[in-house]
Amino acid sequence: MTDFQPIGVAHSPFSTPGAPPFQSAFSQCVGTIEIFPEYREGLMSIEGFSHLIILSHFNRAVQMALVERPLIDDETPHGIFACRHFNRPNPIGVSYVELLKVTDGVLHARGLDLLDGTPVLDIKPYIPAFDSFPDARTGWVTPRHIEQIRGAGASQGMHNRQQQG
Amino acid sequence: MTDFQPIGVAHSPFSTPGAPPFQSAFSQCVGTIEIFPEYREGLMSIEGFSHLIILSHFNRAVQMALVERPLIDDETPHGIFACRHFNRPNPIGVSYVELLKVTDGVLHARGLDLLDGTPVLDIKPYIPAFDSFPDARTGWVTPRHIEQIRGAGASQGMHNRQQQG
Repeated sequence: MTDFQPIGVAHSPFSTPGAPPFQSAFSQCVGTIEIFPEYREGLMSIEGFSHLIILSHFNRAVQMALVERPLIDDETPHGIFACRHFNRPNPIGVSYVELLKVTDGVLHARGLDLLDGTPVLDIKPYIPAFDSFPDARTGWVTPRHIEQIRGAGASQGMHNRQQQG
Repeated sequence: MTDFQPIGVAHSPFSTPGAPPFQSAFSQCVGTIEIFPEYREGLMSIEGFSHLIILSHFNRAVQMALVERPLIDDETPHGIFACRHFNRPNPIGVSYVELLKVTDGVLHARGLDLLDGTPVLDIKPYIPAFDSFPDARTGWVTPRHIEQIRGAGASQGMHNRQQQG
């Protein structure tokens, strides 16, 4: 099928696969997304949005798996479509970042959870009426799991993790 | 870069490019996502999630554009990264659906906004702590625009639209 090409690249302090926090909602990391010059016209009127959806290519995912043991529940295997692990059949990440400013084709953003150099495939404006479902049920993911992730994200040092989204 | 391959296909009542409602949040359409047999193991423990994130390939997007005039504001052009139009450099859609049931590798879902036959690239569980930002600011998209979309989604007959996400 279509061979997707990156429209930009993420720059973050996370240069080693073990480093990035693994959910952008819990990351305070400020980084940048550099949009390549030929796509910068597409940023027009993006400044008014406080949050963006970032689709990225987990190009350092090590292998495809259909079942994984997520860090937050490493006792129990879950289907890859029931967890956010990066070892996916199509390793495309969904991140949400808070847009701080835009300068010369570069998005400055808080909550970046991507490894430095991660290719960016698409950016969409986050619109709560379309994208926010605060009451969604979360299956095997309990409040205890969420707190584990929150703590891990805050410390920004995840052991043995690469990219999740 | 990686040549992504579909893991499944959407089945919906929307067989013509003008038909689908253009935000899943406002669609009451019940459709199915058929996961191909070789990926079905990845559905393990997905039943507990009420909402899923669907990444799809807008394979009938007609052209790439960097600036578009969205239906809800067709007077004013906006950058493609500041709107949800389907004519994107990488035509990957983000949809959110409500999972009703899973039978034999088929997800039955409400809120499907995809054309019948749309290739599905990935499915992730929706987790409000990661994915819900109810207070995000929406730039040029005003409450009036949202109401227009809601009305259009409810009627499920969009004139001259194809796929947005």
